[in-house]
Amino acid sequence: MLKVPDHQVAGHKGRDGMLGPLIDDSGHFYKPLQDDDRGSNEVAFYKSFSSNTEIPDHVRRFFPIFYGTRLIEASDGSGLHPHLVMQDIISSHLYPSIMDIKIGSRTWPPQASEDYIQTHLKKDRDTTSIALGFRISGLQVRGSKESETWKPDKKLVKKFTAKDVSLVLRKFVSSNTSVDTGMDPDCSFASAVYGGSTGILAQLLELKKWFEDQTIYHFFSCSVLMVYDKESVVKERNYGAEVKLVDFAHVLEGKGVIDHNFLGGLCSLIKFIMEILTGCDEDEEAKASLQDPKKNCNYTD
Amino acid sequence: MLKVPDHQVAGHKGRDGMLGPLIDDSGHFYKPLQDDDRGSNEVAFYKSFSSNTEIPDHVRRFFPIFYGTRLIEASDGSGLHPHLVMQDIISSHLYPSIMDIKIGSRTWPPQASEDYIQTHLKKDRDTTSIALGFRISGLQVRGSKESETWKPDKKLVKKFTAKDVSLVLRKFVSSNTSVDTGMDPDCSFASAVYGGSTGILAQLLELKKWFEDQTIYHFFSCSVLMVYDKESVVKERNYGAEVKLVDFAHVLEGKGVIDHNFLGGLCSLIKFIMEILTGCDEDEEAKASLQDPKKNCNYTD
Repeated sequence: MLKVPDHQVAGHKGRDGMLGPLIDDSGHFYKPLQDDDRGSNEVAFYKSFSSNTEIPDHVRRFFPIFYGTRLIEASDGSGLHPHLVMQDIISSHLYPSIMDIKIGSRTWPPQASEDYIQTHLKKDRDTTSIALGFRISGLQVRGSKESETWKPDKKLVKKFTAKDVSLVLRKFVSSNTSVDTGMDPDCSFASAVYGGSTGILAQLLELKKWFEDQTIYHFFSCSVLMVYDKESVVKERNYGAEVKLVDFAHVLEGKGVIDHNFLGGLCSLIKFIMEILTGCDEDEEAKASLQDPKKNCNYTD
Repeated sequence: MLKVPDHQVAGHKGRDGMLGPLIDDSGHFYKPLQDDDRGSNEVAFYKSFSSNTEIPDHVRRFFPIFYGTRLIEASDGSGLHPHLVMQDIISSHLYPSIMDIKIGSRTWPPQASEDYIQTHLKKDRDTTSIALGFRISGLQVRGSKESETWKPDKKLVKKFTAKDVSLVLRKFVSSNTSVDTGMDPDCSFASAVYGGSTGILAQLLELKKWFEDQTIYHFFSCSVLMVYDKESVVKERNYGAEVKLVDFAHVLEGKGVIDHNFLGGLCSLIKFIMEILTGCDEDEEAKASLQDPKKNCNYTD
């Protein structure tokens, strides 16, 4: 049985008779092939990537597994339509908080048409892409109850400023800001989700190392998806924090050059997350010193 | 006594009655302040940088020392004109090979005017900036004799393709290509100039580490200058190989964000140089195995 995914945070949605992705209950994600070059480009990328023996396993795990293409009934009721079949990244999470971040200050490939370049350059300038090297495309943050999910509207997300991005990256790992209130985010999950040897930061650094060296692919308009799961707090120390790359409709051959556009944006995101973690440490030190009067006062025995 | 520098490879030249930089014989470089904002911006950057206590010494050495501004007779005979006074980086070199590389796939700051953006975007697309994240702005490569200096014309440099850039970075450290011949560059100085613990690569990696972290400045249209000196081969193992940053007319405040545009381009340049060094090692291994028949043949005792 195919259904519209509950947890989609960016991209075209398959609700209300629109063409959009579907999932089944065996962990597959079906993405309708776009009619223009984008569909065939994404299939070509997945085929090339799947069969490329130069991709190390510790890098491959950041990409959804590809199962080929299949003709299935489209979500808009228009009948059979070719779909990419891939791993449903979200299905292994019970209660996921998700953020989709489009990486790179430039979302247009060098040889794009003049119209394409001007349209996408405008989007890059109107969002945080030019300023930060990345932009948030969508997110949902779970609270302690289902009703407390914060999933800001697409229009709001598009207007995020640099300051908003910094705040939202904090809210993403806070327990007190799942509903969009004016409260200061407490960052109470930051060290568990972003930090640690298997957290988001460690994964992004692993990816960075690959991007410093790989000259096979250039990823334009590709997103880093960050997922974690408040329900798994008991099971795992890092809340099942996961990084995946998604959206490969604009991947080009690297031709012996590194993807400096993606790498620059990735390093910028990494710096934001490092700053949040440093802030946490300082907060915890401050709390500790408040609890320990000796640390807080200048008195002698 | 002020004179026009011999070894300028990029930028406006002070010859033939034009306004351009001058040098004296005590190691000072005088750069005429440009009338528009660029002059005052560059002075403002140097003043800010000189007095900023957050810049570590191992980073400061990549910047020319700043001595303030001075009114001196301009090179175009127009009378007294304000000049930036800074360290003449080249004067300590006897017989310098020099390359000026403008870093960043984007040479325009975010808040530039529409005209400025479109003009510079075009330049970035017409050169290798968009494709490689950097472009060569000028160079001179010394041969064994003065007459063998290769200093390609500005127009030729502007037309460099990605392939040309890769070749020119090889020619820069070769003994057989100082005159522009069709010969394969021998890369005979590569391991000495690019490699080693104090060579160009080590210096660029040091700079990279700073750019991964610093959020104070964003450097648009700024160049990495690579200099080495064939005459100093006897004195120093690495031919006095030096990296300096120059041209700060378009430096902006970082506002808590890393300079992902500069960093991406720098990483791309680093990868090119690493590839050349790997090529050298392979060449040397090949040569060694040719000299050692045991390594070259599959025979048993």
